[in-house]
Amino acid sequence: MIKASDRSKTVNYAIREVVVPARKLEKKGNKVLHLNIGDPNKYDFDTPQHMKDALYEASIKGHNGYSPSEGYDDLRNAIIKREKSRNNVDYKLDNTCITSGVTESLQILLNACMNPGDELLLPGPTYPQYTLITSFLGGIPVAYRCIEEEGWQPDVEDIRNSLSEKTKGIVLINPNNPTGALYSKKVIKEIVDLAGEFKLPIFSDEIYDDMVFEERQYATATIADDVPVVTMNGFSKVYLVPGWRIGYILFHHNGELDDVQDAFMRIARSRLCANSVCQKACLAALEGKQDHIEMTNDKLRKRRDFSYKRLNEIEGISTAKPQGAFYIFPKIDAMESGVWKSDKEFVLDLLHEKHVLVVHGSGFCSTYGKDHFRAVILPTIEILEESFNKLEDFLKERI
Amino acid sequence: MIKASDRSKTVNYAIREVVVPARKLEKKGNKVLHLNIGDPNKYDFDTPQHMKDALYEASIKGHNGYSPSEGYDDLRNAIIKREKSRNNVDYKLDNTCITSGVTESLQILLNACMNPGDELLLPGPTYPQYTLITSFLGGIPVAYRCIEEEGWQPDVEDIRNSLSEKTKGIVLINPNNPTGALYSKKVIKEIVDLAGEFKLPIFSDEIYDDMVFEERQYATATIADDVPVVTMNGFSKVYLVPGWRIGYILFHHNGELDDVQDAFMRIARSRLCANSVCQKACLAALEGKQDHIEMTNDKLRKRRDFSYKRLNEIEGISTAKPQGAFYIFPKIDAMESGVWKSDKEFVLDLLHEKHVLVVHGSGFCSTYGKDHFRAVILPTIEILEESFNKLEDFLKERI
Repeated sequence: MIKASDRSKTVNYAIREVVVPARKLEKKGNKVLHLNIGDPNKYDFDTPQHMKDALYEASIKGHNGYSPSEGYDDLRNAIIKREKSRNNVDYKLDNTCITSGVTESLQILLNACMNPGDELLLPGPTYPQYTLITSFLGGIPVAYRCIEEEGWQPDVEDIRNSLSEKTKGIVLINPNNPTGALYSKKVIKEIVDLAGEFKLPIFSDEIYDDMVFEERQYATATIADDVPVVTMNGFSKVYLVPGWRIGYILFHHNGELDDVQDAFMRIARSRLCANSVCQKACLAALEGKQDHIEMTNDKLRKRRDFSYKRLNEIEGISTAKPQGAFYIFPKIDAMESGVWKSDKEFVLDLLHEKHVLVVHGSGFCSTYGKDHFRAVILPTIEILEESFNKLEDFLKERI
Repeated sequence: MIKASDRSKTVNYAIREVVVPARKLEKKGNKVLHLNIGDPNKYDFDTPQHMKDALYEASIKGHNGYSPSEGYDDLRNAIIKREKSRNNVDYKLDNTCITSGVTESLQILLNACMNPGDELLLPGPTYPQYTLITSFLGGIPVAYRCIEEEGWQPDVEDIRNSLSEKTKGIVLINPNNPTGALYSKKVIKEIVDLAGEFKLPIFSDEIYDDMVFEERQYATATIADDVPVVTMNGFSKVYLVPGWRIGYILFHHNGELDDVQDAFMRIARSRLCANSVCQKACLAALEGKQDHIEMTNDKLRKRRDFSYKRLNEIEGISTAKPQGAFYIFPKIDAMESGVWKSDKEFVLDLLHEKHVLVVHGSGFCSTYGKDHFRAVILPTIEILEESFNKLEDFLKERI
């Protein structure tokens, strides 16, 4: 047998790995309640009609060939305009690149800057791709604590304590996946100051920026002044087109990131381009009406309110209140019972016994995510209620 | 300044790197004749209308969310059906995965199987992504000779001589980019036998499979019997949608590739999915009428015939006859004059003096590609004629 590479051995993507046993159940004819995938389009959210029309128009107009590697200029300029009006940050065309989702921005960015042995500071818990790609490149993911009691705000002192000479950057995910935390302006400022003190760049993932329920989201670059910030964003979530795979990256700096940005662009040129026809439709998204955003947030707020209240009623479960994105990250207090060896076992038991699928918290951070699970708050209140009732029954039966 | 990673230093993509000086010329108001990019949609080729309609329909029907990581089952099954009817090869669903173009198949495949120090046998000249990704992973690209006098058929004896204990696989690109070679059944069989003898897998890039001018293309897997073959293919070229970024990979083996295939699928699951809405439109492409293929090939054959004849008339240029794809890879006999230090200098001089853009041969292989250039035969005969006239003038003026 021909052996796989050493680097591939570490790859395990929690979010998708629990899908395999769920699919098996479904193949046997069982109905599974999916609270696992961050895809609003799988629930009762839909892409705005004018974006679908723009997609067709782009194809008819012949935008089916390669775009420039960095993306179409008109889309990049529209993004620059949005950054100016939303965040009061100025970007030049050369500081932007369109990628196949934030995933590809992140892949290229870490490839462009991480050497084996370099460390990357990540929120604990974090979106697993950060850990995965860092490890894949021989880098070391270092989780900093986020404070559950404070709605999962980053613990700035723990970031300071986690720094080393090998630290290559500090990652923020705001609003956060998997916790739904929205970082306060004060906390972002403190992290920016810390980054400035140690001359480190911040890598800021803001894919959920306009998905918030009470307070507005502050872009790190707005607050950063002289600290270099690389922002990753995209259309998947706020514009309800996760399957279109259109993301982008923005380099905000005074030359400190010239070398990394140059490497990023060289790698980007080597992989052709992001989907061209969807790029054109995303241009229409930025230029068209935005009313779906408030409608989406209104729905999500109600589901967040329900989930927060209902989950906290369940004996053995407690949860912080998400302020953005579409996740909730409850603590399984019932783990103290010793009935389950791990949160993964808990999640798989829940799946097999009640056909409710969530993702185990340790998949997001072995330290700060363990004994939790991530659920999406995307389903209708009826389905959320059915799922949480089943979770309650499951706990009552097992403890 | 924050330093880029060591691995990023090697990244230089010849095909796109010559675009930068060309863009500068265009910004100054010059008209550049582009014979450089392998994108039929930039010339007078267009995506079939029923695929555009299918794209819109897919979006309207709500396929804008994530697809399964491996791609939609219906598309994978349609590809399996095509493989059976076109190539008489049987695949199971688990042996297939949809990716963002062949580029992503190749990235994931090499990530899944290459360790630092491993060698990959590549046709000389080759499509540069093979060299680039191999080097990026710390692997060693080893070029085997292709025989210009025999229309760039692989030199099987040179493959044998290039093997080592570190060889991880043999790459075939058939029809070939950049030479337009179509490999004979006999040569493929000899390479298969060699691979079998050394228990090596073949990585077969067949993205141009139905773009042929006289003979049909034979899939490596058809001929391979007991030799493991990984085939990479996609819709970009034959279905005229390079910007849609839909490719796929097929694993053909009797267990020898279980480990690599498993690693591939785990990496694939970690990067979400290929563009969902275009996947659905590619399903329509396979199920719909295919008459655009013959029309495309008829146009290309005429342009190939013209390019082959006209280039061979030019003093200082000679070329083999392409049998497939849409490239021609002439030899710059005039390099013997010593006027240019390198083929890259030749290409840049031609660009600056005559505003004709081709890609330097050494960008495709420093050994077997040097003193050549790659041109696409995609433009109309009028534009090809204008370009080649300018090339002829350039040579007359300079020598």
